[in-house]
Amino acid sequence: MGRENIVYGRKVIREVISSGILINKFYVSEKINKENIKDILDYALNHDIVIRYVKYSDLDVVCNNNIHQGIAAKIGEYKYFKFRECLESVKREESPFVLILDGIQDPRNLGSILRTAEGMGIKNIIIPQKRSSGITDVVWKSSMGAIGNLNICRNNNIPYIIRELKNEGFEIVATTLDTSKTIEDYKYISPIALIIGNEEKGVSQELLQLCDIKIKIPMQGKINSFNVSVASGIIMYTIKSIRKEF
Amino acid sequence: MGRENIVYGRKVIREVISSGILINKFYVSEKINKENIKDILDYALNHDIVIRYVKYSDLDVVCNNNIHQGIAAKIGEYKYFKFRECLESVKREESPFVLILDGIQDPRNLGSILRTAEGMGIKNIIIPQKRSSGITDVVWKSSMGAIGNLNICRNNNIPYIIRELKNEGFEIVATTLDTSKTIEDYKYISPIALIIGNEEKGVSQELLQLCDIKIKIPMQGKINSFNVSVASGIIMYTIKSIRKEF
Repeated sequence: MGRENIVYGRKVIREVISSGILINKFYVSEKINKENIKDILDYALNHDIVIRYVKYSDLDVVCNNNIHQGIAAKIGEYKYFKFRECLESVKREESPFVLILDGIQDPRNLGSILRTAEGMGIKNIIIPQKRSSGITDVVWKSSMGAIGNLNICRNNNIPYIIRELKNEGFEIVATTLDTSKTIEDYKYISPIALIIGNEEKGVSQELLQLCDIKIKIPMQGKINSFNVSVASGIIMYTIKSIRKEF
Repeated sequence: MGRENIVYGRKVIREVISSGILINKFYVSEKINKENIKDILDYALNHDIVIRYVKYSDLDVVCNNNIHQGIAAKIGEYKYFKFRECLESVKREESPFVLILDGIQDPRNLGSILRTAEGMGIKNIIIPQKRSSGITDVVWKSSMGAIGNLNICRNNNIPYIIRELKNEGFEIVATTLDTSKTIEDYKYISPIALIIGNEEKGVSQELLQLCDIKIKIPMQGKINSFNVSVASGIIMYTIKSIRKEF
């Protein structure tokens, strides 16, 4: 069930404020120590945002029993970016890097991947409209508010987007277990689009066929896969490291 | 609440079987297609393990409403390894690498880190007795059963363990935001012990003072930290890559 307009947790709310996203209302626990969230309360006063003081248990309900630290906010619906906007933005990067998430279903994984992308300086993200978590409260929380600094495009024609990226000179990199090549076998000199697949099924056959490069993470244990957000982190970091961007 | 003796999910149960952990009983959904778990049922028959067929909803209760795919197992209590056993094991490695988890509290994070460690070929793990998740059902599930292939030691005197490792020639590497050095600034030629800190507080001051090397992951975004399991994955992978182990 999408709870798309509620965010909670102090760090997340501070990120939402700093990214300029529209906030309609704050819900604050009656018992909160106001000194600890003075910056947030000041922001609300200065921007004429309603503050509703509620019981802690009511806040639990608003936040679906997730950890909220005594404060939640109702925000405007996430305004997805258009593919054209992402394309213009990524083309301005020194070493263009766009991330395509091919159907991440667990909102905690999606949030964690978005947090990592933001920390790596990867700003433009494409997600499909179907078979994928949208931007829910859990995604906001798991991303630690990183979403506010990203350009996320939701589009239902990922093959079209890939072809457009190829026309613009992007190399399409997919992660799959079904390859002998590892992340370290390439130099990533061209602009790239990195495709990360679904938790269970990986990248779909349809998209794999459109790829220029297929890579995997080398492994040494018996278990042959990592959690998708861990795998994404290792791959994004290693590509940036091979590109000598750090 | 520790649910330490129940594991569920087909992949996890197959890993438990293959690692030889004691299984006391299977709980199987009445409606399951037996063909899909024939190997598991055969194992139960050949090893005289009781199979209890139950309603799907009863299985939900047994598994605390986590995803179980129609099968659960009651296993013996996790038998932690002694520090001496871990030390002997890691000393036999070509490039010794032991992981110390300084108080990971979310069982999903702990499971995910253990899964990554196993996939990287890091077999010996130290966790503290207090202020840390133990080996619960959620940890088993998030680790995809990797726990069965690891030597996990739980000890309440981590400073003592660190001093013992130093005496044995290990270099102690801690991750912290409070350093100018990054993962890529060292060669990791000596045997190493990598310390990963708690989700909120990082590595404790007490342990930081015992470290030889402090490193961080270089970042470029506004958010200044990653999810702990993502960060661990990047650091473990990069150290192994710098050591040219892949």
